[in-house]
Amino acid sequence: MSRIVVVGAGAAGTSAASTAKQFDRSHQVTLFGDLASTAYSPCGIPYVFGREIESMDKLFLQKPEFYTQEIGLDLRLSTAVESIDMASRTVTQAGGEQVGFDKLILCLGWSYVLPDIPGVDLEGVHFIKDIERAREIDRQLDSVENVIVWKARPVGLELATGLAHRGKKVTLIDDEPWLLGEFADPDMVKPGQDSLEALGVTFMLSTELKELRGRDGKLVSAVTDNGEVPCEMAFMAADEKPNTALAESIGVRLGSAHGVVVDDMMRTNIPDVFAAGALVETMQAIAGVPVSLLPSTYSYPQGRIAGTNAAGGEMRTRAAYFPWAMEIGTIQVGGVLITETLAKALGRPYVLGVAKGITSARYHPKVEPMNVKLLFDPKTRELIGASFAGGDGVKERSDFMAFAMRKHATADELANMENVYSPPIGALNEPISTAAKDAVKRLGAK
Amino acid sequence: MSRIVVVGAGAAGTSAASTAKQFDRSHQVTLFGDLASTAYSPCGIPYVFGREIESMDKLFLQKPEFYTQEIGLDLRLSTAVESIDMASRTVTQAGGEQVGFDKLILCLGWSYVLPDIPGVDLEGVHFIKDIERAREIDRQLDSVENVIVWKARPVGLELATGLAHRGKKVTLIDDEPWLLGEFADPDMVKPGQDSLEALGVTFMLSTELKELRGRDGKLVSAVTDNGEVPCEMAFMAADEKPNTALAESIGVRLGSAHGVVVDDMMRTNIPDVFAAGALVETMQAIAGVPVSLLPSTYSYPQGRIAGTNAAGGEMRTRAAYFPWAMEIGTIQVGGVLITETLAKALGRPYVLGVAKGITSARYHPKVEPMNVKLLFDPKTRELIGASFAGGDGVKERSDFMAFAMRKHATADELANMENVYSPPIGALNEPISTAAKDAVKRLGAK
Repeated sequence: MSRIVVVGAGAAGTSAASTAKQFDRSHQVTLFGDLASTAYSPCGIPYVFGREIESMDKLFLQKPEFYTQEIGLDLRLSTAVESIDMASRTVTQAGGEQVGFDKLILCLGWSYVLPDIPGVDLEGVHFIKDIERAREIDRQLDSVENVIVWKARPVGLELATGLAHRGKKVTLIDDEPWLLGEFADPDMVKPGQDSLEALGVTFMLSTELKELRGRDGKLVSAVTDNGEVPCEMAFMAADEKPNTALAESIGVRLGSAHGVVVDDMMRTNIPDVFAAGALVETMQAIAGVPVSLLPSTYSYPQGRIAGTNAAGGEMRTRAAYFPWAMEIGTIQVGGVLITETLAKALGRPYVLGVAKGITSARYHPKVEPMNVKLLFDPKTRELIGASFAGGDGVKERSDFMAFAMRKHATADELANMENVYSPPIGALNEPISTAAKDAVKRLGAK
Repeated sequence: MSRIVVVGAGAAGTSAASTAKQFDRSHQVTLFGDLASTAYSPCGIPYVFGREIESMDKLFLQKPEFYTQEIGLDLRLSTAVESIDMASRTVTQAGGEQVGFDKLILCLGWSYVLPDIPGVDLEGVHFIKDIERAREIDRQLDSVENVIVWKARPVGLELATGLAHRGKKVTLIDDEPWLLGEFADPDMVKPGQDSLEALGVTFMLSTELKELRGRDGKLVSAVTDNGEVPCEMAFMAADEKPNTALAESIGVRLGSAHGVVVDDMMRTNIPDVFAAGALVETMQAIAGVPVSLLPSTYSYPQGRIAGTNAAGGEMRTRAAYFPWAMEIGTIQVGGVLITETLAKALGRPYVLGVAKGITSARYHPKVEPMNVKLLFDPKTRELIGASFAGGDGVKERSDFMAFAMRKHATADELANMENVYSPPIGALNEPISTAAKDAVKRLGAK
């Protein structure tokens, strides 16, 4: 029997605690969450705002009773952990109660970095995270006409899409010149921008937000270096930072991405202290660069690994490639790092393979574009990056390309891949294969 | 300069002739087609019948002038080749004109095997292939109410789907107990059958068609061992056979799938005679069984390989896995051989991995099921078969699995694959990964 304490009840923490308890039911597992809710999908909030999903209630996966009664966790919601003492192996929760542990798993996630501009505390300025806050905002939205979204990051673009669906007049403000700069090249996200513009969203790119201006404490406009935009509500898709304060307080080492450094068993540098989820750093296999703030797809398996190892098992992480995809307006975009932009920034040589493909037979009414850009290593001819923009199937192609990278797929192999042809669901030529053929031409004979 | 004769102007022949000419423009390339049209997509015909595609004209890729003027072929449509003389290296076309060759490429495709029942020659009984015939049938369909489709093969199911969309009363008759028996297990095609039934199609499975009955030379009913079905039109998705008569006349060797045996350069056993397309045999890599009558996805690259090699280049085929997918009603089905049924028939040991997954976040309105069945080799743990049934993304997943097989992917690797999670387009857990995890449990630790 071990006493295992998990701090943080998001995806990683819930997964770590449940896994540890299920690994050995004699363990006493305590899970602390500072919010009142757990086991919900914050990713769904923009779609509730957009009325694509009818209610926030749909986003809950489990009630707290599931974890207390079915799994057998000591679940403490609305209960922040205020300090950790490694000498006595205890955590102290808000109010002073102490809980002892043999193993500790830190899953504290992330917070927004409040932007350094006046007016971020005005009524009507929102940083989307907590679902109970989101319920209130959802009700308030009915009486709002003009909305700004700050930063063309994933959450910002999902919010812009949802709010446009809801009939709001949306202005998207970002100081970068194109959307999703961290993941995507400008040519691959332009169709997404076009699609949002067709939905009525106004873009103010390369535009700095200077101030949120209020009247009687309520937001009335956003002031930028390109002019003032009237708005009753602002959604701030601000920078995020890993919540590492508690970890740092006990000497846990951080890395270059400001996240907790863990080994392949999710162990920190402090004995018996594990970490998992958005606050840890993971190495991107192609770029060789550590990345923190990964999405919940990674939090669940990382939590499983931390939970298993804390409970006495052995489970290891593997190289990560980070496939991603999302809808922007009616366009799907996605891919696997690295992008052309990143390759250039890293000084990494690459050969491109590009294709303007289609998703169905050219004569079928369901046909949509599928633009592909692949990057290959000029020496090994192996795939080192993939980007997609178009209709259905971007998520599946991104998953495929991440797996192909793991298996060291070459341009030649992808050029000769077999593909399904069926008029309503697949074109004669798979766009991935067409792009790889283009790369083979540029690479020359082996 | 060589004289290259290509017999057959379907996908393989058009591809072979164009490739040979483009490889070396000094070659004199003659392309014979027995029909009046070329470069159309017969796969689109069911969707024109279903009014999803507005007209047969949409199915044409190129006009004949493209091949004669742009490519520079000597294109002879409505011109059958009647005989080949290898001693003088000449083909004789209908009417008696002779054309000499240095290299010959046979791309004669396939024909229906006329079923041995009374009434197949009645007015109203159709074997879909020629697009000009299909135009007439399309016009006649307006005045037809009851239709039977014989055989639940791909074309039969596409026709049944299209005709149901068009509002016809469709009865599908097959002597097999389930749909697509050659490609699919019964549990994986049942959702497709349910979907067609919801569209109003009546299934008569395990039912033998005994006779097509007519009045004044016109079809009035189909007689089966389960009763008589009134119908004014019958679509016969009959067995197909490779068109090998001309090949056999010059001593070309056939294989166990009744197709032409070729090496990896598409060469037959007769020097300077190549073959490509539906009439050749290709080895299925997992089953180790030769297969003929492959779809046009294979005809194009095979034609390219035959054309290149006949023109003096060197290009080789690779192992083939045959991903397939199609829509049945509103359900997508697909996969990569082998199926569980085939594994059993071959006595091949396997371990299953199954999942009842979803295509989007469980709370998103676009969510659809994605049932997965994977087969793994119990010793090597490598993927040897995949089947899908559900919503969007079956084609992409089938392509992915064919590539994974080529790269010897194991259950462990697929269980740990990374995947995109984005509420409208991807679930938290990729169904492929869930199915592979199920297989890992059954396989036990490595």
